[in-house]
Amino acid sequence: MNVTVNGRTRHFRTVTFDARRNTVLLIEQRLLPHEFQVVPARDFRQTARAIKEMVVRGAGAIGATAAYGLAQGARAFGGRDLAKFLQHVETVCETLKAARPTAVDPVNAINQVRQAMHAGETIDEQQALALAAAEEFAEENVRHCDDIGRHGTKLIRNKMNILTHCNAGWLAFVDVGSATAPLYTAQAQGRSFHVYCDETRPRSQGATLTAWELAQQRISHQVIADSAAGHLMQRGKIDLVIVGSDRTLGRTGEVANKIGTYTKAVLARRHGIPFYVAIPLSTIDWNLKSGFDIPIEERHESEVLGAWGLVANLQSATRNPKSAPRVYLRVANPSSGALNPGFDVTPAELITGIITPVGILEPRELWTRRQELGYAS
Amino acid sequence: MNVTVNGRTRHFRTVTFDARRNTVLLIEQRLLPHEFQVVPARDFRQTARAIKEMVVRGAGAIGATAAYGLAQGARAFGGRDLAKFLQHVETVCETLKAARPTAVDPVNAINQVRQAMHAGETIDEQQALALAAAEEFAEENVRHCDDIGRHGTKLIRNKMNILTHCNAGWLAFVDVGSATAPLYTAQAQGRSFHVYCDETRPRSQGATLTAWELAQQRISHQVIADSAAGHLMQRGKIDLVIVGSDRTLGRTGEVANKIGTYTKAVLARRHGIPFYVAIPLSTIDWNLKSGFDIPIEERHESEVLGAWGLVANLQSATRNPKSAPRVYLRVANPSSGALNPGFDVTPAELITGIITPVGILEPRELWTRRQELGYAS
Repeated sequence: MNVTVNGRTRHFRTVTFDARRNTVLLIEQRLLPHEFQVVPARDFRQTARAIKEMVVRGAGAIGATAAYGLAQGARAFGGRDLAKFLQHVETVCETLKAARPTAVDPVNAINQVRQAMHAGETIDEQQALALAAAEEFAEENVRHCDDIGRHGTKLIRNKMNILTHCNAGWLAFVDVGSATAPLYTAQAQGRSFHVYCDETRPRSQGATLTAWELAQQRISHQVIADSAAGHLMQRGKIDLVIVGSDRTLGRTGEVANKIGTYTKAVLARRHGIPFYVAIPLSTIDWNLKSGFDIPIEERHESEVLGAWGLVANLQSATRNPKSAPRVYLRVANPSSGALNPGFDVTPAELITGIITPVGILEPRELWTRRQELGYAS
Repeated sequence: MNVTVNGRTRHFRTVTFDARRNTVLLIEQRLLPHEFQVVPARDFRQTARAIKEMVVRGAGAIGATAAYGLAQGARAFGGRDLAKFLQHVETVCETLKAARPTAVDPVNAINQVRQAMHAGETIDEQQALALAAAEEFAEENVRHCDDIGRHGTKLIRNKMNILTHCNAGWLAFVDVGSATAPLYTAQAQGRSFHVYCDETRPRSQGATLTAWELAQQRISHQVIADSAAGHLMQRGKIDLVIVGSDRTLGRTGEVANKIGTYTKAVLARRHGIPFYVAIPLSTIDWNLKSGFDIPIEERHESEVLGAWGLVANLQSATRNPKSAPRVYLRVANPSSGALNPGFDVTPAELITGIITPVGILEPRELWTRRQELGYAS
């Protein structure tokens, strides 16, 4: 999407690849919203570390980063021995997969690139095929998000108030985003509306990333505490909820997403407010049979016990210019601990519809239309 | 309650009065949980400012502070002219009421002290009566909280997991607290249980004050993000919810409390988890006929856009020793605004019971048993 930095507007993708330098280029998301920087990952190990340390985050974005990382690793091999090359590729794949072991997108991306490589007979051919497949993974991600926007925009009426949670924007994908795609399309079509961004504690992706995205695109928005949505719904101030998903079960229509999503779905149901989930096809898990089987990542308690941000007037004096310009603040009682589940599961019955690249479906239609949705098992 | 500072344990009340020095003594709540200090308010204007600037906060605590402030102001009058004395008392009352115009407890406290003063004929008598009435207001607040503990403790079974929101602990009252009273009583009776403290964004009273209180009393607890409770309920990890109230409508049983309370009530209903509200009688509003008539305070957006806390390693270098040892951190996108409603209203139908000093009542029983509950209109 377009980003305006120091008065200049330019189009950026979250993840791109510089084939000449064999380098993955990433928007450094840990610096946002306070600083916009594109940083290079010069070899596959740096790329894996960027995923692990969350320079790049979001399902589609880490999928594309892993795809490029595999191409990058394969292309860096200088020898002539095919067996050694294949062994090296194996190492690259394992390193990239291990970066975020619970995410499914990098796994799908790596499998897709690897399968494409099989068609090549020489090392050169396989290296070229890896790059082409990685580019195709990224392009497909963008097409899926565009399609989500095209279908989802029908839900957005003029003057609507829309609630969103966490960041399922273009920063979480290669471009455009999932939950934000219908908003960007509706804006391009001339409709105006207002977005309430749940701040999304503990990591505040709503207050930092989604608010930054919407401000960049000049979409009317306000940040709210995660606790405020129920009150706003009760007072008739929210017309529609759209969120993303980290894993959607193809067999049941259950949706795992950032902690707090389930609460918003329960509140929306109580108030008769439509609740939609936007997903590219790579988010669908065709294997699991129940939402209770989805492993819920327990994250470090420090996230809940404090916050990251900028300290007014102190920043220049205290920051290390080589690190993120942010400091960690301890908010909670120093002798108390925290429990920090990162995700929750929303049952299909609370979901009005799932906005997919092939259209807006009822949750159970994921299974009945599985061939169309890329089911392969 | 008991507070242990530097290894020494002593009993403190949130608000006390030093009659010899005519000084109100307050726990400086803005320093907690990072520092424990009792600060003096040496005249009624300082006392009013302490309420306004939230040195002291919480319904019962600011009620008692206002009662003492009125006695303090009356006792500071040195003249012999009764008419001038009454005029002075009027000024004291108006100054104290204006400190937190939306709170009902200071108004009730001031009315109670003033009425008691009417029995005195001389200035000396009225001054003495004011002090006695203020002490009685504070003592009644403690008795009410003790009674809430005695009734509410029946709800607490051994090994229970209990969710609470914001701080309705002893820091919000003169002692003991409302929502925490049943916990402290159950602990004294030898039961063990675990408390999940909603952090309660944006001001984080759960993470700071409630967590500090529970740590001081050695009650097992963890802070959670406000968004996490739904997930924990879904996984069977919460057995009971107890919250406080800023205003409870005697005619309908509706409860205004810190933003996010309503959401917890909706989630509790979905999961069949009992949801209780603990209130002393001074929290009841016998006049309003609908929760929609309760004015919802809109607070400053900076609360949502950032956080207050301690910066590790920076604190000693940057803090002003005369101010709170905390810094404000900007978390959200700098060009984004926020909406910050401070309270929400929970309908009676979602409330399992109201724990009052006279027993645990159904919400509609507030009205049918109004004589017993101090109704006067």
